[in-house]
Amino acid sequence: MAEIVEVADLADPRLADFRDLRDVDLRVSLEAEHGLFLAEGAKVVRRAAEAGFTPRAFLLQPKWVDGLADVLVATDAPCFVLPEREIEQVTGFHLHRGALASFERKPLPDLASLVGRPGRLRIAVLEDLVDHGNVGLIFRNAAALGVDAVVLTERAADPLYRRASKTSMGNVYAMPWTRVRGMEDILRVLREHDVVPVALTLADDAITLDELAAMQHERLAFVFGTEGAGVHPKTEAQVDHRVLIPMEPGVDSLNVAAATAVTFYATR
Amino acid sequence: MAEIVEVADLADPRLADFRDLRDVDLRVSLEAEHGLFLAEGAKVVRRAAEAGFTPRAFLLQPKWVDGLADVLVATDAPCFVLPEREIEQVTGFHLHRGALASFERKPLPDLASLVGRPGRLRIAVLEDLVDHGNVGLIFRNAAALGVDAVVLTERAADPLYRRASKTSMGNVYAMPWTRVRGMEDILRVLREHDVVPVALTLADDAITLDELAAMQHERLAFVFGTEGAGVHPKTEAQVDHRVLIPMEPGVDSLNVAAATAVTFYATR
Ligand SMILES: C[S@@+](CC[C@H](N)C(=O)[O-])C[C@H]1O[C@@H](n2cnc3c(N)ncnc32)[C@H](O)[C@@H]1O
Ligand SMILES: C[S@@+](CC[C@H](N)C(=O)[O-])C[C@H]1O[C@@H](n2cnc3c(N)ncnc32)[C@H](O)[C@@H]1O
Repeated sequence: MAEIVEVADLADPRLADFRDLRDVDLRVSLEAEHGLFLAEGAKVVRRAAEAGFTPRAFLLQPKWVDGLADVLVATDAPCFVLPEREIEQVTGFHLHRGALASFERKPLPDLASLVGRPGRLRIAVLEDLVDHGNVGLIFRNAAALGVDAVVLTERAADPLYRRASKTSMGNVYAMPWTRVRGMEDILRVLREHDVVPVALTLADDAITLDELAAMQHERLAFVFGTEGAGVHPKTEAQVDHRVLIPMEPGVDSLNVAAATAVTFYATR
Repeated sequence: MAEIVEVADLADPRLADFRDLRDVDLRVSLEAEHGLFLAEGAKVVRRAAEAGFTPRAFLLQPKWVDGLADVLVATDAPCFVLPEREIEQVTGFHLHRGALASFERKPLPDLASLVGRPGRLRIAVLEDLVDHGNVGLIFRNAAALGVDAVVLTERAADPLYRRASKTSMGNVYAMPWTRVRGMEDILRVLREHDVVPVALTLADDAITLDELAAMQHERLAFVFGTEGAGVHPKTEAQVDHRVLIPMEPGVDSLNVAAATAVTFYATR
């Protein structure tokens, strides 16, 4: 059972995991350095615990001590209890949901281990996607629509960052994922394991998504590009197919998370 | 040609359209009262002008006077030019894109006029969707994936509000849409025009989206529900079909914008 701590002093150093949440850059480097991540909202916190992550600490409004009793009973991590207003002073922002927890990160798996098993496989590759909200939404789509794992390039946003786990509705935790430095390495490992890489793009020589679906590939990896420039030309040149979701005239593109939903659905 | 005005005094009353942009509630009521809306970013501003909305005023960083020359040449509205820092003082927030314009709203059309023409028809109905970002994304999906018009209930968010037009990438302006007070009225007008209303829901007795697509309805209206509670039970009971996008076990739901993308694509 978690030790319930009524915090006497807001400067208590044991609250370190929960400070300065508004400063994205600071948080991203702090969380990487200390190997932790933050979950916000009772539902997201519960999902992280259910996925087997080890809690470091909780920071809860009083009502959530009961609301998260099932999670608290299974850990020895301290649970700090504070009224809403004071939580806001610690974190530096208004917490709509009144429940925060920090967890230990786990080492990321090898890509080879994610694509190693035989049979039907669907992989999403996020090339340099920097928007945490979009990355979270894509994990939610991936979990809902039968994708087996997600691969991110080095520059892509952190799926465990608070905003991403929030837009994912906690679906980042159970989804297998990893990060690989460059697309060359990603494409090589995919090919070694008979996974066909395709890129979702607006390229002139693209086949349509329906044409791809009709090919009935057993093992597919979909590369999605950034909101700004899209998939890198070099990547486009290296994949087996460039694939277009046909659009009405006059529309530039779909939001990348919408593009993933359509792609996963059409090829499931 | 727009009159280019170098603003001498940040308190200039002619800047009224552009003040206090951070205060959503204030802006929403001010914009409704004065029959205006704001477009942010050169691309979104250009789209509003192209769709035939009449500009009231522009507020631009110097570089955008050239960048938007094609738009400015076609109007008599004043164009206020200010450096980034001072635009920030007027608007109260950091403007990433350095271009703002206010436009006159037009009266909304009758739903009957939107569904009146014969032949193939796809209508999206947004029941009480209050998130501006989601509403904008849904308009982008609708424009890209062949939806003819969007209908919003009274409580749903304003598609012309700055954040919605931004996430829509300016696709709110050319898309026909209207607002109707209650679902009863919406369903009645749809039926009068031989449009089959269906609701996207997680209801137990739902058919799958593939089953709906296989029915090849010529005229369809899709009702989507709020991020929290989903489609109202009363609405679910009144539509012709409840329709489910099948998901993997353990996932609660898709984000509503993702659900629209999949639905529009599967039934296009
Ligand atoms: C907003 S789009 C980027 C558009 C970019 N300007 C381009 O020309 O590729 C972000 C990503 O979503 C995916 N995407 C969006 N719309 C698409 C479509 N109609 N067909 C295929 N992929 C699409 C692609 O992976 C793209 O890299
Ligand atoms: C986040 S969901 C709301 C979920 C809500 N808790 C419920 O039980 O309906 C928002 C809207 O997206 C649509 N939606 C999301 N996932 C869906 C799915 N798998 N099948 C059908 N509609 C879905 C529905 O229109 C729903 O009202």
